[in-house]
Formats: sequence, C-alpha cells, structure tokens
Amino acid sequence: MRIVSLAGGIGGARFLRGLLAAAPGSEITVIGNTGDDITLYGLQVCPDLDTVMYTLGGGIDEDQGWGRQKETHVVKEELAAYGVEPQWFGLGDRDFATHIVRTQMLRAGYPLSAVTEALCARWEPGVRLIPMSDDRTETHVVISDEQGRRAVHFQEWWVRLRASVPAEEIILVGADQARPAPGVLEAIADADAVILPPSNPVVSIGTILQIKGIREALESKTVVGVSPIVGGAPVRGMADACLTAIGVETTAQAVLELYGSPLVNGWLVAEEDDGVGLDGVGLDGVRVRSRPLIMHDVESAAAIARAALDLATELSASRGEPAGTQGEDGL
Amino acid sequence: MRIVSLAGGIGGARFLRGLLAAAPGSEITVIGNTGDDITLYGLQVCPDLDTVMYTLGGGIDEDQGWGRQKETHVVKEELAAYGVEPQWFGLGDRDFATHIVRTQMLRAGYPLSAVTEALCARWEPGVRLIPMSDDRTETHVVISDEQGRRAVHFQEWWVRLRASVPAEEIILVGADQARPAPGVLEAIADADAVILPPSNPVVSIGTILQIKGIREALESKTVVGVSPIVGGAPVRGMADACLTAIGVETTAQAVLELYGSPLVNGWLVAEEDDGVGLDGVGLDGVRVRSRPLIMHDVESAAAIARAALDLATELSASRGEPAGTQGEDGL
Repeated sequence: MRIVSLAGGIGGARFLRGLLAAAPGSEITVIGNTGDDITLYGLQVCPDLDTVMYTLGGGIDEDQGWGRQKETHVVKEELAAYGVEPQWFGLGDRDFATHIVRTQMLRAGYPLSAVTEALCARWEPGVRLIPMSDDRTETHVVISDEQGRRAVHFQEWWVRLRASVPAEEIILVGADQARPAPGVLEAIADADAVILPPSNPVVSIGTILQIKGIREALESKTVVGVSPIVGGAPVRGMADACLTAIGVETTAQAVLELYGSPLVNGWLVAEEDDGVGLDGVGLDGVRVRSRPLIMHDVESAAAIARAALDLATELSASRGEPAGTQGEDGL
Repeated sequence: MRIVSLAGGIGGARFLRGLLAAAPGSEITVIGNTGDDITLYGLQVCPDLDTVMYTLGGGIDEDQGWGRQKETHVVKEELAAYGVEPQWFGLGDRDFATHIVRTQMLRAGYPLSAVTEALCARWEPGVRLIPMSDDRTETHVVISDEQGRRAVHFQEWWVRLRASVPAEEIILVGADQARPAPGVLEAIADADAVILPPSNPVVSIGTILQIKGIREALESKTVVGVSPIVGGAPVRGMADACLTAIGVETTAQAVLELYGSPLVNGWLVAEEDDGVGLDGVGLDGVRVRSRPLIMHDVESAAAIARAALDLATELSASRGEPAGTQGEDGL
C-alpha cells in the first residue's frame, strides 16, 4: 500500500510512528511542514522535519516530544555568554549538529529536499520524508503588544510568547512563490490513501495545503483525517489559539469544515466528540467514525492509524458512490 | 607605552600573557595570523585569533594550549554520526559557539576585524586584537603522498598528518590580494616598540609579514624578536618542519636571518644558543641578548617579555647610531 501523510511536529510524528506499526511493508511518504522553519544564529532550523526524523529514527526526547534524547546545552550557554539573540529558542548540542549539516548543504546549493534525504540516511525513519517545498516560506503571526501591531515569526509567538498574545492573523510568507518539492505531487498521485494526522490544522496541515497544487492534488485522492481536537480542546499544543486566529471554533466539527469537502473523505473523531456540535460531527460526503484518539503510546497511535487506514480502504472500495452519501458510521 | 606584537597561536598567546604582566598600563595591539583559518562544516574557524583571545581572556584549555577549558565534544560526535568530514579537527562545543557567532556576523557582512572585536567584547583579552587582514588568505602546503603531489590546507598537514609528510612548499593563497586590516598599519605607525613573540617563524610571523605593507611598516620601527628556537629545536609545535620546507635551518641564527635586517633590530636568544652557530648568533645591525626563553608559566613569560621591552627601549634610546653598530651584548 502506498500511503501519503502530511505532518507537522510532535502530534504528527507520534501518529506516524503508529502508522508505521499499523502498516508494515507499506510505502509511506511524509510531506513535512516547513512553515515553522527559522534561521537561528545563521543556521537553518526545520523543527517539524526534525521532530519527524528524530521520532521515527529513535533519537527523540520522548518526554519533551521534540529535540534529541540525552541532550546537552553547552553551545546555547556559550551563545548566551556572547550575548547572541534569541535566547528563548532551546537548541541542544546534538540538535545543533543537524542544523550545521543542513546549513552547510543548503549553502553548497543542495535543495532542502536533498538535504532532508541526506539527514534521513542516518536516521532511517522508515518513511520517505519530503519537505512540502524547497522554496523558503515562513509562518508569521500578527500580534498587538506594547510594541504595537506587528508580525513576528511563528516561533517567537509559539515558543517565546507561548501563544499568550492573541494571533490576529497567521500568514505564510512566501506561499505564493513556493512550489511543492520534487516528489510531493508524484507521491500524492501514486498514493492509495492519504492520511491527515492530528497535527495542528492551521500552522501544520493548513500550511502544507497552502502550497500551490497540493490541495488540488489531494482532492482527487482518498483522504482520511484524524481530528486534532478531542473533547473540544487540542490534544497537545496550542491549536486553539491558531484556530481562534482564523475564526474557527476549537471543535472536531469546525476543523473538519476547515479542511472541507472534497478534500477530506473520511474523518476520525474522538468518542467524546461523536455527535457533539449543533449539527453533529459531519459534513456532506464525509464518512465519519469515532475512535479513542488519545495517543498514549505507540500501540494506541497504531490503533488510530489502523482505523484511519481501514476507513480509507472502505472509502476507496466504495468509490463511485454518489457524492454526499454517508457511510454506516456517518450521522 | 604603545606596543605592537604579531602573534600566531599557543606560543604567541603565552608570550602575550607575559607581555601583559610585564607592561601593565601599556596599550598593546596584537596583529593575529589568519593564514591558519579554515572553513569547517560551513563555519569560519580562526584558530590563532581564538587561541590568543581564549588565553588572554581566561578561557583557554591550559594543558592543551588551544581550545576551551572544560570542553565537551557532543556536536563533533554528532557530525561524525552524520558522516560529515573532516573528522580530524577537534572542535569542542564551547568553541563551536565562537565559530557560529563569527560565521553569522561574517555572513551578515561584518569584516573579520569587526567580528573579532565583537568576540573580544566578551573575553576582554586586555589587548586590541586585530586580524592581519580582513581579506581571506589560507596557508596551503604542497606535499607528495600516495595521492601524488598536491596542496593541502595547512590544518590538514598540521593536524591530520602531524607534519609527518615533508612540506615541499608553503604558500599563502590570497596573499597578493590581501590588505592589512583597518588599524594594523596605524597601530604599527604609532608603536613605541614592536615585539615578535616566539611564534612559528614561517606559518605565523612569516605569514603576517607577507601581507602587503606590514613588513615595510615594521622596518621603520624598533622591532625586537624572541627566538622560537631553543637549543636547536622548536620550543613547541613543529616549526622545524616548516623551516625545512623553506630551506632554513632550525637554529636561532637562521630564524634571525630569515626575518633579516632592517626588519629586526633586537633579538633575544636562549642562553643555550648564545654564540652557537658557524658565525655565532647575530646579524649586522641587530643587537642580540641571551635569556632563558622557556615559558614555564606566566612569570617566566613575563621575564622574557620584560627583556624584550628593555632591549626595545635601549634600541629606541640609541636611535641615530650608525647602522651596523653592535650593542654591548652583540657579538
């Protein structure tokens, strides 16, 4: 089976670990979000790609969910001793090495997709990890604070401000110029199923969907999404702050509507959210199924992935049904 | 007193620590060798500038003579895990931070002299440290080995090969284009005395002297050199291998002749070398004095520095003597 998954950071990476366990022998291509990327100290940092790579490659800090296990922070301390800013981004020494290699390769002229492939040669994540684009994009967040109304890098809002200042707008700078990285559209075209993991619907999945051609390519495929909202709150992270910024409620129903049809054909919601909402969870033409959606460990993540794949298989088998028909599990 | 000193790495840095102790209140400008500089993993490494900065700033690994004290090597291990070359250059984590800051500033457009000043703002070395040039130069060494006759970076010959393969030629690539960094010629013009510490006469002092205008500027000043050769051997390092490459014997006399007159006006030799050599230690017009030249500690380095300054003061006082006159300590 050929599977394509979009992915952000921690939630996406943990889901992917479950997907690998649920679909042994499958060919999985992961299209990673690079809107969170940031240049720090002259080094190119790709938090989401690295979280996927470290998680699937066995190098992740399990407790934290990002960064390297057994990490040290000598370089960061030294940079602070030089008075170098920013000091709010926690790069560890092991992680620094990744950014040094990446930056050296980028400066030598390799595109980010080739660099990512080279880094993955060490980590052997078991999936093909492709950045959404080789073109530079950056998610910026418009906030108003004592310095007035201004746009800050997503990481500054997310990491330094902990999303404590309301996001008035979330903009992917460079989106209009960015093309999908080589292999992205091909992988989607060849896919038997596309899975949207419970990543942030705005700054992870939503960002990838902004890259020209990706949404359109997905619309002709069987796409199953896993709700990142459980019981009316994000499972982790601050997706609610991002959803509020774009005027979307923090409900499984609202996220499904955000993705919309014809993009999504199947939708896994948490049991807590089954039937919740004014009109219940659902959307014309989308088959909805409820499952336990909390990823406690690889096993529970694998169960969710298996449910998503089963739903995708059913949907593919029933292709040709008139649009708008609800499956047995639909409302 | 305004003092200018040229300097390479370990020997120069230790001498400078003595010079600071010997001449409190003096204004010392150090012109640092950058021919050893190397780009590693996309980062600009300036070994000699850093050795001076760390030594005078209290951050040096005292046993090793280079690199940072209490150093760790996590980044280097990780780079090796990625298979990144070279793996023979021992950058520590603390040291990496320096190279990251330097590289970021260089890429932002600051000249190396401004970057060095910024780094020194943290280390407060007590001297003004200026690179010999803001223009990129690199010492390359021509060797013949199983790969044929080829030029390698000085660091590859020095660190990886431990100078075990004879150097057939030593070339400062870029020397013809390089101009002295801002402040270099001005500091020399304003100096009451110029001291050549016991740094490598070929790849440290000799390199600095190749930068257009520096030798000429020094020739009109009172210059006292400290022999790096004691008892017919380098005090440390592999100066003999460098001297052999350029056809110069490893003797205090031969190094003095290499620097030559009118560049050098005074010459400190080790007691072991007093009168050694076919014609004794000396050169027409150069006042020679013998002293213990082993730097066991800051005190012994300070004693050498004091002797050099005393000699410079005497020479300055006797300015107007006809050239070729030997002082009381001469041959």
